[in-house]
Amino acid sequence: MSDSAKINESRKKGSYRPTDYERIFHPRKLAILGVSAGENSVGFGSGILKAILAMGFEGKIFPVNPKGGEIAGLSIYKRVEDIPEDIDFAIISVAARFVPEALEACRKRGAAGAEILSSGFSELGTPEGQTLERQIQEVAAKGIRVVGPNCFGIYCPRSALTLLPGPDLSRESGPVGFLAQSGGMSIDFAHAGKWMGVRFSKMVSFGNGADLREAELLHYLAGDPETKVITMYIEGIKDGEAFFREMKAATNQKPVIVYKGGLSRAGAQAVASHTASMGGSRTIWQSMIRQANAIQVANSEEMAQVAMAFSMLPQKAFRSISVVGGGGAIGVTACDLAETHGIEIPSLSAELQDRIGNHLPKPGSSSTNPIDVANPFVGPQALQEVLLAAAEDPRIDLQMIVCLLFHYKGLAQAMNLPVSAVTPFRELAQAVREVVDRTGKPVIAVLPNAKRGLESMDVIEMIAMARQEYINRGIPVFDEMHDAIRAVAHVNTYYNRKK
Amino acid sequence: MSDSAKINESRKKGSYRPTDYERIFHPRKLAILGVSAGENSVGFGSGILKAILAMGFEGKIFPVNPKGGEIAGLSIYKRVEDIPEDIDFAIISVAARFVPEALEACRKRGAAGAEILSSGFSELGTPEGQTLERQIQEVAAKGIRVVGPNCFGIYCPRSALTLLPGPDLSRESGPVGFLAQSGGMSIDFAHAGKWMGVRFSKMVSFGNGADLREAELLHYLAGDPETKVITMYIEGIKDGEAFFREMKAATNQKPVIVYKGGLSRAGAQAVASHTASMGGSRTIWQSMIRQANAIQVANSEEMAQVAMAFSMLPQKAFRSISVVGGGGAIGVTACDLAETHGIEIPSLSAELQDRIGNHLPKPGSSSTNPIDVANPFVGPQALQEVLLAAAEDPRIDLQMIVCLLFHYKGLAQAMNLPVSAVTPFRELAQAVREVVDRTGKPVIAVLPNAKRGLESMDVIEMIAMARQEYINRGIPVFDEMHDAIRAVAHVNTYYNRKK
Repeated sequence: MSDSAKINESRKKGSYRPTDYERIFHPRKLAILGVSAGENSVGFGSGILKAILAMGFEGKIFPVNPKGGEIAGLSIYKRVEDIPEDIDFAIISVAARFVPEALEACRKRGAAGAEILSSGFSELGTPEGQTLERQIQEVAAKGIRVVGPNCFGIYCPRSALTLLPGPDLSRESGPVGFLAQSGGMSIDFAHAGKWMGVRFSKMVSFGNGADLREAELLHYLAGDPETKVITMYIEGIKDGEAFFREMKAATNQKPVIVYKGGLSRAGAQAVASHTASMGGSRTIWQSMIRQANAIQVANSEEMAQVAMAFSMLPQKAFRSISVVGGGGAIGVTACDLAETHGIEIPSLSAELQDRIGNHLPKPGSSSTNPIDVANPFVGPQALQEVLLAAAEDPRIDLQMIVCLLFHYKGLAQAMNLPVSAVTPFRELAQAVREVVDRTGKPVIAVLPNAKRGLESMDVIEMIAMARQEYINRGIPVFDEMHDAIRAVAHVNTYYNRKK
Repeated sequence: MSDSAKINESRKKGSYRPTDYERIFHPRKLAILGVSAGENSVGFGSGILKAILAMGFEGKIFPVNPKGGEIAGLSIYKRVEDIPEDIDFAIISVAARFVPEALEACRKRGAAGAEILSSGFSELGTPEGQTLERQIQEVAAKGIRVVGPNCFGIYCPRSALTLLPGPDLSRESGPVGFLAQSGGMSIDFAHAGKWMGVRFSKMVSFGNGADLREAELLHYLAGDPETKVITMYIEGIKDGEAFFREMKAATNQKPVIVYKGGLSRAGAQAVASHTASMGGSRTIWQSMIRQANAIQVANSEEMAQVAMAFSMLPQKAFRSISVVGGGGAIGVTACDLAETHGIEIPSLSAELQDRIGNHLPKPGSSSTNPIDVANPFVGPQALQEVLLAAAEDPRIDLQMIVCLLFHYKGLAQAMNLPVSAVTPFRELAQAVREVVDRTGKPVIAVLPNAKRGLESMDVIEMIAMARQEYINRGIPVFDEMHDAIRAVAHVNTYYNRKK
């Protein structure tokens, strides 16, 4: 039996090779193969080196290139063998044909793992590409774990490892783990998470997945104490049995959110040319994901929204909610959405309605639940009183406040002031945070923006500031009510099934 | 039989009172009742007067307030009777109890119609409110058409009528008509349309709909040559039979897009308190809308997207499309979405693939359809060649280009230049326009943005500029591929059923 056949065999049994993930995700000594000398050097190797420095990497970096020279103040070693110390991890970005020997050199230098950014392997569908990828697997089998090839690598904010080309990812560590074959999907998801308030523990773009791939990485994240929520974009898998076993085991520990691409026939073919693995039918995937109590989402925006909900809300299902917003259609929409997703919006008692009514303008407001505050200019104090009162209904598990802050633009124009000066977004975020603290019940903020044209850059900026104020206070924020209620419904599905 | 009973009777028979819509939507002489004097006067009456002036109204405005005085350089008449000329249209914003006599005064002064912005009528559910609303109907029956009460009024860019409080709506007239009870939904949809490139012929927020409401307004828009696409947000209807007859008649003329709120049980109750009409069950609505060959959408974003597709694309179904974008996951996503929506993404011939391949970077690109251009930095000229070649396949009805322009931020940082300076968005829009002109096949642009945080305001602005360049050239733009493909699917549904 060949080395790689042996590895596949042990994977099927659910046992994985001992792996020093600590040295892979938090390397102290890092080799980067394939940098080029000079301040203006471009290329993936140089780019990733500069990105990692920009992210604040605190360990030692050993750049490698046969031509030597210097980059970013660091001497370039001509060969891996010349590096004066053993290394923890290597980033390999040399031409495909040099990759197997480069990997072997890193293994000999003690690396626990390496990410191979280079492409030109099995994804080409050529015999040469397949041979090179097999050679990678043979080196890996001797004792170095490989992420890639044809990938964007690892993003780990705590250690400052970052995805290609990612110098500008968030440096804040958080509870969300992410796995994907697709590098493009990974980097875009990292960026989307940054502005949406999703903070990552570890992201792994594993590309062709010659060695480490979905099942084993999922196994790792399931046991990783830094990771509280697992997200993944999956195109195809190589070992369905192991993958679903790991998924099931993982959902016993923490929520697992799956965005499966390549569900269509044509999509499966596109998967084949993209990452050289098999897609599989829509029905099978849906039922397998459901059986494993993982959460299936339809696109990366939904995945980010659901990850935010899972990571920022208490770990439970929310049967009944209150909805507070200005404008009657918000209430109608909330009811329609809630019913679709199996969530209740119970009417409040007459007494609570009276109390709420005292804080709202008349006519036009309504104190039943959904609570229609009549206009977008009801202030933070009044909204706080409304939320405090609604939370007294013992049925209410969660509150949602919809703020049409963009309407303050009109007020700002009338007052001849900047919109960020007239909109009490900071006070509102603070008022909401106090409600959460005093009631023990979570609140979700929804900040739609109907003004997104070139003439409304000030409104866009103000709403981005408002979002930041909420996120900083641990309040999840969504653009639209339908996104928010769908996310809560996913949270409910997970915890209800888990019981 | 009372007057209002007679009117209801004739509505059921599908005959409506003769109405001078020209004088209602394009008044030359406009009375505004309920302004208050002074430069800093607030309130709805003064607000709408200033908004209409800001929109560029060219006719005569006669402000009315019993106290007299002056506003915005115009003398305020103390009574409608004092206005020296007959009027075409009136905007009424006085306290509810004064509305019936104000309306009667406008009728006597020759007004063809009036919009009543005031609230305090049947929506309160009180006997007083209902009596006042009946009095409005009685005046209306004598020969003045009424929009409202409890509404935001009419928006008509060509005449500069605008919704409350709307001084900043688009002044460009366009092909999309809109109807809604909800004023909040109307103003937000008008704003969303503005940045998305949806241009309106007429919008009517009819609130309680004491006189003019959905069926009759739909009848009017169906015959209105300025309106090519009808959109509506409907909560409840008062006469289902007439409404569905008009909807069916309208879809024979032009697409009708319906966002129905209040489909849930609780939503129907919320509708009752919001606009005093009945909601109705989800199943009945869905099947009625389908039978009428109208297009049902789930929210206002989808409504705007579909309106844009209908108004900017040729009037036909699109069976097969090409998709061009950078990054393999785009192709996978496109295939999944297309299959879900019954759209084909056929593989191109070997010859076309060869031609396309000549313009794309290697490795990493793929010239089958979806066409993966490998990275987001492939230039306008190369993309133009790719689109021109793909259009030669006789099966391709429509092309979609997905541009991840936000990735240019990295390039801009590396080059120390503003992102708008390094991103060839104008050239790209121009290249796409030329493709449409040369091939006769429409192209849709998709401009996702994963960078929307406070530190990325420059990226947001650049993408807003890019959107504008496409819209100015008549190219529809979407944020996400799933929005774009869903919108095309709705267009297909309409034209396929209509055949």
